[in-house]
Amino acid sequence: MDCIFCKIINGDIPSNKVFENDNFIAILDAFPANEGHTLIIPKKHFENIFEIDEETLKEGYAIAKKIANSIKKSLNIDNINILQNNGALAGQTVNHFHIHVIPRIENDNVIIKSSPVSIDNDKIKQIIENIKENI
Amino acid sequence: MDCIFCKIINGDIPSNKVFENDNFIAILDAFPANEGHTLIIPKKHFENIFEIDEETLKEGYAIAKKIANSIKKSLNIDNINILQNNGALAGQTVNHFHIHVIPRIENDNVIIKSSPVSIDNDKIKQIIENIKENI
Repeated sequence: MDCIFCKIINGDIPSNKVFENDNFIAILDAFPANEGHTLIIPKKHFENIFEIDEETLKEGYAIAKKIANSIKKSLNIDNINILQNNGALAGQTVNHFHIHVIPRIENDNVIIKSSPVSIDNDKIKQIIENIKENI
Repeated sequence: MDCIFCKIINGDIPSNKVFENDNFIAILDAFPANEGHTLIIPKKHFENIFEIDEETLKEGYAIAKKIANSIKKSLNIDNINILQNNGALAGQTVNHFHIHVIPRIENDNVIIKSSPVSIDNDKIKQIIENIKENI
């Protein structure tokens, strides 16, 4: 297994752990966007949101909320991004599902932005029908 | 109530709905980063991840997974960001909890990036202890 997160979970690579239970670890990001930047990682290897089962996903986000609350209390930061990336085009660099909890402060070096695309009404109707039909 | 999402939920403002159940709606973002950009919104008004209860949070992310799966099937896009912003410094513009499901394509205009900050080992130890103690 060449997955760096699996190696961290197995203890083959050291990490800065802030939380652990039967199904998850939470560690400080090794390349933090800000102090307190934490990753929530399931112990079982799922590549992404498509692979992870619903129960494990829900537990991961419950832990993300706990970590966010703790960051608010311990670091006094209540501006936080909860980010989960799927696929290289979305910025996923480790192919083992993980949730970023990113504390935000004034004038930090995190950039999250987009400009809106224009979509005509017929196309919007088609997208709505397509998404509805495949849920 | 001056909340635009509460007005959408009440039907006072039109929206492009792709999903609805007792607790949530999912609508196309009015200023989409890409085609299929969807918002998952609880019907009850919670400001952010600190206010929302754990059960509602979990249901929201289960719905986000369903929407992501549907986007994969219907739009053939499997690069997706799942993003939830808390606070103005984190880019939250509507103060009613919501989860973004953002399909990503090559050369789109979404930017999500940061450069790592350097934190000395003593400070890292202190952060770990602080987060652990407050979970």
